[in-house]
Amino acid sequence: MRNIKLTIEYKGSNYCGWQKQKNGLSIQQAIVTAIAQATGESVALNGSGRTDSGVHAIAQVANFHTASPIPPERFSFAINAYLPEDISIVSSEEVPEAFHARFNAKGKVYRYYIWNAFRRNAIIPEFAYFAPNPLDLSAMQKAAQIFVGKHDFAAFMAVGSKVKSTTREIYKAEVSEVECPFGAEDGSLICIELTGSGFLYNMVRIIAGTLMEVGLGKRSERQIADALEKGERGLAGQTLPPEGLFLYKVLYEVF
Amino acid sequence: MRNIKLTIEYKGSNYCGWQKQKNGLSIQQAIVTAIAQATGESVALNGSGRTDSGVHAIAQVANFHTASPIPPERFSFAINAYLPEDISIVSSEEVPEAFHARFNAKGKVYRYYIWNAFRRNAIIPEFAYFAPNPLDLSAMQKAAQIFVGKHDFAAFMAVGSKVKSTTREIYKAEVSEVECPFGAEDGSLICIELTGSGFLYNMVRIIAGTLMEVGLGKRSERQIADALEKGERGLAGQTLPPEGLFLYKVLYEVF
Repeated sequence: MRNIKLTIEYKGSNYCGWQKQKNGLSIQQAIVTAIAQATGESVALNGSGRTDSGVHAIAQVANFHTASPIPPERFSFAINAYLPEDISIVSSEEVPEAFHARFNAKGKVYRYYIWNAFRRNAIIPEFAYFAPNPLDLSAMQKAAQIFVGKHDFAAFMAVGSKVKSTTREIYKAEVSEVECPFGAEDGSLICIELTGSGFLYNMVRIIAGTLMEVGLGKRSERQIADALEKGERGLAGQTLPPEGLFLYKVLYEVF
Repeated sequence: MRNIKLTIEYKGSNYCGWQKQKNGLSIQQAIVTAIAQATGESVALNGSGRTDSGVHAIAQVANFHTASPIPPERFSFAINAYLPEDISIVSSEEVPEAFHARFNAKGKVYRYYIWNAFRRNAIIPEFAYFAPNPLDLSAMQKAAQIFVGKHDFAAFMAVGSKVKSTTREIYKAEVSEVECPFGAEDGSLICIELTGSGFLYNMVRIIAGTLMEVGLGKRSERQIADALEKGERGLAGQTLPPEGLFLYKVLYEVF
């Protein structure tokens, strides 16, 4: 049996999320089905973590064990032949037997995109949240730094989530304006990029919503520090919708 | 009656093209319907030209006459409220009575995007043509210059098109690699940008196909010159599909 690591890109708009569910098609299920078609095997596919319905991934990572004779680097081509248009295996490689996409993940990079203009964007509505009122980019950049470091992010987690610890470490928080090749010259495509040890449920979307409110002048840095300190969800900003969120990278130490 | 000029962005994937047709919903029809909902008027909407099914626009231009009291700059908001997600009015303004989006157009800028990587792109398959074999960018850049100038483009027009003259002038032809905020780091997003006085039916898609074949080493500059000279469709390259094509700008002298 070989252990194969996949790097996966997907547009999450038409899926119920990464994880297999009773209702709705999941990304995981679509890939497991394609692997079965390519190899004849029914495999267990371990993702680095779940992504919600509507959330996209540029480089989700997953692994599975197989007895198939397909060369490791060729799995990407073999599986892509059976996948729908909105899921693509970027690359495949053999990794040590012990590698597990979730247990060995040391961190993740997420991006949240906001389309800031007076009018809706018709080309990328599935990839960016539309914020019609002008955002103060430098205020958002400055406020983002408050999140950097090891903090109790209890206030930045969806209510009702069950976790042992709500402490996480953010290594880097960047807010920038990015170019888009598909037009968008009359507005700004704002990118919030967070690199961290791990993220609580809805944490990136709540941080993005909080920073957006800073950009609107509706929330102060002092309020963010207060929310981090008190750990009450009601003290943090709104949860932005899934369409602007991209799992950008999963960080591993050895593999 | 005031004459209103609209700048329009749309994702063409779900439409039969710009022009009203018996079968399928057109962009033009969707906008005329939204204008009727916003103003109560049934207007004649003059586009700068047609775009085919699946072709996108960053800045299509159209005009219509209206007796509505809506302030000119507010038409964009009023119409957007009634348009579907994949069409957005970028801006609206009042123009002189004589302005006609098609008759006054002095030129157009089109872009054609090619996603060049070993694997399909799952995020932007509706916005770029997938070319799996490596393309020689500098060969394409050099060959693109052959099209610049006034030429008879008969060989670069869909067979059966009816036009008085097949002579057009290309002012500028650029081939470049562009950044994409939505991943795509393991491949190249290649942009072919053509600025010209006007374009024959399928001309941009045939030029893009011809340049792609140059990038693959399957077509020489000499063959392009020969196709321009002889005017036979069979001497030019393939017509690339609509999804990579964007009407990027319409050029006007005065307005």
